[in-house]
Amino acid sequence: MINPEDNQDTSLIHRTADHKPARTLSHYLIGRPLQTADAPHETIGKAVGLAVFASDALSSNAYATQEILVILAAAGTVAYGYVFPISIVIVALLAIVVISYEQIIHAYPDGGGAYIVAYDNLGQFPALLAAAALLTDYILTVSVSISSGVAQIVSAYPQLFEYRVLICVVCVGLITLINLRGVRESGAAFAVPSYFFIVIMILTIGTGLLRLVTGSLGTVVDPPEIEHFGEAISGVTAFLLLHAFSSGTAALTGVEAISNGITAFKEPRSRNAGITLIWMAFILAFLFLGISFLTRAVGAVPSEMETVISQLARTVFNGQGVLYLFVIVGTTVILILAANTAYAGFPRLGAMLANDGFLPRQLTFRGSRLVYSYGIVSLGALASILIIVFQASVSRLIPLYAIGVFLSFTLAQFGMARRWRRAGTLKDENIPTGSSHELKYDKRWSLKMISNGFGAICTGVVMCVFAITKFRDGAWIVLILTPTLIGVFLWIKRHYSNLAGSLSLENYGEPPPYNVRHRVLVPISNVHQGTLAALRYARMLSDDVTAVHISMEPEDTEKVRRKWETWGRGTRLVIVDSPYRLFLEPLLNYIDEILANRQSNEAITIVVPHFVPEKKVHNALHMQTAEMLRRELLSTPGVVITEVPYQIP
Amino acid sequence: MINPEDNQDTSLIHRTADHKPARTLSHYLIGRPLQTADAPHETIGKAVGLAVFASDALSSNAYATQEILVILAAAGTVAYGYVFPISIVIVALLAIVVISYEQIIHAYPDGGGAYIVAYDNLGQFPALLAAAALLTDYILTVSVSISSGVAQIVSAYPQLFEYRVLICVVCVGLITLINLRGVRESGAAFAVPSYFFIVIMILTIGTGLLRLVTGSLGTVVDPPEIEHFGEAISGVTAFLLLHAFSSGTAALTGVEAISNGITAFKEPRSRNAGITLIWMAFILAFLFLGISFLTRAVGAVPSEMETVISQLARTVFNGQGVLYLFVIVGTTVILILAANTAYAGFPRLGAMLANDGFLPRQLTFRGSRLVYSYGIVSLGALASILIIVFQASVSRLIPLYAIGVFLSFTLAQFGMARRWRRAGTLKDENIPTGSSHELKYDKRWSLKMISNGFGAICTGVVMCVFAITKFRDGAWIVLILTPTLIGVFLWIKRHYSNLAGSLSLENYGEPPPYNVRHRVLVPISNVHQGTLAALRYARMLSDDVTAVHISMEPEDTEKVRRKWETWGRGTRLVIVDSPYRLFLEPLLNYIDEILANRQSNEAITIVVPHFVPEKKVHNALHMQTAEMLRRELLSTPGVVITEVPYQIP
Repeated sequence: MINPEDNQDTSLIHRTADHKPARTLSHYLIGRPLQTADAPHETIGKAVGLAVFASDALSSNAYATQEILVILAAAGTVAYGYVFPISIVIVALLAIVVISYEQIIHAYPDGGGAYIVAYDNLGQFPALLAAAALLTDYILTVSVSISSGVAQIVSAYPQLFEYRVLICVVCVGLITLINLRGVRESGAAFAVPSYFFIVIMILTIGTGLLRLVTGSLGTVVDPPEIEHFGEAISGVTAFLLLHAFSSGTAALTGVEAISNGITAFKEPRSRNAGITLIWMAFILAFLFLGISFLTRAVGAVPSEMETVISQLARTVFNGQGVLYLFVIVGTTVILILAANTAYAGFPRLGAMLANDGFLPRQLTFRGSRLVYSYGIVSLGALASILIIVFQASVSRLIPLYAIGVFLSFTLAQFGMARRWRRAGTLKDENIPTGSSHELKYDKRWSLKMISNGFGAICTGVVMCVFAITKFRDGAWIVLILTPTLIGVFLWIKRHYSNLAGSLSLENYGEPPPYNVRHRVLVPISNVHQGTLAALRYARMLSDDVTAVHISMEPEDTEKVRRKWETWGRGTRLVIVDSPYRLFLEPLLNYIDEILANRQSNEAITIVVPHFVPEKKVHNALHMQTAEMLRRELLSTPGVVITEVPYQIP
Repeated sequence: MINPEDNQDTSLIHRTADHKPARTLSHYLIGRPLQTADAPHETIGKAVGLAVFASDALSSNAYATQEILVILAAAGTVAYGYVFPISIVIVALLAIVVISYEQIIHAYPDGGGAYIVAYDNLGQFPALLAAAALLTDYILTVSVSISSGVAQIVSAYPQLFEYRVLICVVCVGLITLINLRGVRESGAAFAVPSYFFIVIMILTIGTGLLRLVTGSLGTVVDPPEIEHFGEAISGVTAFLLLHAFSSGTAALTGVEAISNGITAFKEPRSRNAGITLIWMAFILAFLFLGISFLTRAVGAVPSEMETVISQLARTVFNGQGVLYLFVIVGTTVILILAANTAYAGFPRLGAMLANDGFLPRQLTFRGSRLVYSYGIVSLGALASILIIVFQASVSRLIPLYAIGVFLSFTLAQFGMARRWRRAGTLKDENIPTGSSHELKYDKRWSLKMISNGFGAICTGVVMCVFAITKFRDGAWIVLILTPTLIGVFLWIKRHYSNLAGSLSLENYGEPPPYNVRHRVLVPISNVHQGTLAALRYARMLSDDVTAVHISMEPEDTEKVRRKWETWGRGTRLVIVDSPYRLFLEPLLNYIDEILANRQSNEAITIVVPHFVPEKKVHNALHMQTAEMLRRELLSTPGVVITEVPYQIP
């Protein structure tokens, strides 16, 4: 044997890969790899930024008002009067949350999701809590947005009602595919539909208010059948109002999006992002209050068959004309865009968690189109499951939704409050905190602490109200799911830590010497070109090669023996009898025997010819011997199973 | 490099494997491998032979009469009067078929299924037609028998009705498991329930006839709701009678079982098997006629809720006493035994077809319990699917069933008729036919030819009647399925033939010399004990080893570089930059480049460390790099991907 230390070129070569297209079949489906897709984002201004990041928040107008009505309906139509007051309270909450996030934007100019803020200021456990809440919410954003989008379409075309679940799942599938191909948050693609939605909704609300003032606004013609949630009750209770308020808080989902994407803005990016957030809040507040107010004015009712938006639009615009269709289309498209934003956020958060060791490492890799493929597929699958389980009903999905949003709001704001308190103790000197976000003394620290702390308390209380009032409607699922997710995170982390420990080269001492003996076995069922290819490879590996034939039919064996004399080039052939037509067991027993007698430091390689037929379907017609051996011998140290592919011409 | 021709031990070693138990987890489920299970069958006498082979045929009594009634019911209760005449015609058909099979038994003393007889006398295409029909029928035997068995149980315990599909699937699962563990057609296990069924049914019919004669036989108390098939019609039509007759021919299924199992009988085995067949036919005829006659006498009606057998038994035995329960239990058990016989026949036929190259070769291998595992699992899965699709309804399964049985009857008998004609031309001299079944001159050849030919025509006509009358009920499925199956057989055969051609060593000339250059690549993401194990293996394979690191984070790469200096033992390290966190693409591009520049006859091996965690679930937390590379590089000649397992302690 040649000393492996000889003849080694020890030069260190450092090179940059040029990305040639890869070759899988899946490229037909998800397209050829992008070459330049990950070029640094062009930074965007405030107007485009609003379009890109506001779709999630603004789209919740499509269902928030309706969800308040669904709850109130339990007490009869008299309770509908509370929809506008409740909406005002929700807008007040929006103001508090937005003020808090303004501060996050300035403190974390590199993007500060709840996970980062909580990790940075509160520690690992709150961060995992935030991560669990956020992951759940990304999934629900897809489920709720698509379900609501399809509900708008169904409102205009009621004959599609019975296919709504199927349509939803197909939509999710398409969005998943598009995201696997790779979409960038490109300004133009978002700007048109976002502004279209804003304009058409302002037009709707404006027209509605004008006709109300002039007295020409009627009420909903042929209102659909009223749907309500839970048992009917007689009279409006405090619980009912809190319950309805909880449902309405769905309007706040998506407000945090800008704080995650600050890096996309032009410099001064924190300032630009902050101003965009304020704009978005005003538009959101106006649309939400406008819709809630007019809903009451026209007497729209909650229904699975026709959305409140549809009832409102056809009343304001006197029937199902072009403007009505614009409202439906605009609402549907912005909901689909909202779902699409989750496809950016979910894999990004998954990659962050994977990088910190809380999720499988694979999530940190990008697919061939520069996207986190595993995360995207998981998101699509989970959202589809939820849609199927809850039959694409927004009202049944909502109880699972906003609780996680408010949990992450609360953790982010508590984190910020804590940060200001620490900043206050610094007294003008900079202390590196060990994180990338440097902590500076801020003379207005107490004011900021109070504002973030107040926000945290408000959203925390809302979360508790939500959890209690919606516990029976489905919130309990989240209360089980969140700790479970955290358990999974910690379990994965422990596995990686243990692994790193046992693989570590600290205290490893001198590694064992390179093996000196290498024994190679080649199982053969017949002697043909594939066998010879495997034999050729085996003989290259070692001089100690044994071919093994499991003999089931004496005639066949005789043929193999004779052919081997011609083609085996003197390689040792062992014939193992198997009168009962067993194949794997005699081979394994023979290997066992060899293992029992092997010398220390002897490696054993089993070389198996592997046919690669031209058509994949033909694979089913060949024994996957290597796969079977691998399964059996995986836990045996020092045994390597090698397939030698033989391309069938 | 060392000349691989040196130092070779060229001795030929021939050894017999001793079967030590193998080590898979599945052994908990399917048991430890049998050591002696395949010892030659003890041969059996006529009495035990009847029990072993009659279960399939006799069990059809459990549903044949009922299926006639289901069809007649469309014309109202007045049509029930035809059940007995139809049964007499079916028994006449039984006589014809039995006479034909008597001759097959004597002509094919080694066992002659329809596939063998057709292959031997009619050629490949008719043989494949018979094979397709038989495979379909084995599946349907399981579905129909289990569905009918569960229907008997449900008759006694109506509260189980809504769980019937589940119960059926669980039963099929259990039988599949039992067969994976390996069951022999052991005489005792079959004799007790078979004779129990025969005795209890004779007792039931005898008591019923006696009470009818003495005038004490009443009619069914509280008959269940009548079920019928197809639209109600006014008056009995010829079509209705033929339709009902077709359903009743299900009674003949299983008659061919003895001709498949002749080798199991004591010598003179053809004679013993033939006599057993006659016995079986008489018992079958008596039970069938008895049940049909009494069914009419007590006014039993067809129903999904309660079987005719159950109605008959509780009327004859005055309620649900012990004897009634004996009938239900006896019928259920014999139906389960009938399903079980398909588990022997289906894999055996599959192995025959696989041996002739019409099905995947894997089917010829035996699992660790000496059984054809693939075939058994496929049978269980397909039967379960049918049960679920047809909701365990015997009436809905029957239209798919008997058509294949009659197709195979017809082909077997045509084959025999052809054989006698050829035998007749031989004039006293023996001609080797190229098959194992020697053709001898038979002076009574014309009589035998006429008898088999007449049988073939009768069963052929019945098959056509069946196909026409039951076309809309589901027979069309079989008429599509059978050609499809034949297409699959021929497609597989062509693949194997092409493969054998392209792998053949005829005209192969001198094989290429053993490779002289062997380049080994080791992709590494980090330097740890697993990496070193892979490196150690790679260095054993060749002196030309290159480690490749895909660099995503400059910091990590610097760590890898430094560790490599310590642990790499001078092995060349190439660092490929991947600023966008891609992993697979840069690696593939690097490999592509090496492939482009390789010398002729240079082999490339990629050695990948593969973690084997203690718990299988942890596998999900590791990149399956080798699997990914293998998928991408499978069609590239000369590249081998080797996983070096590293057992995590």
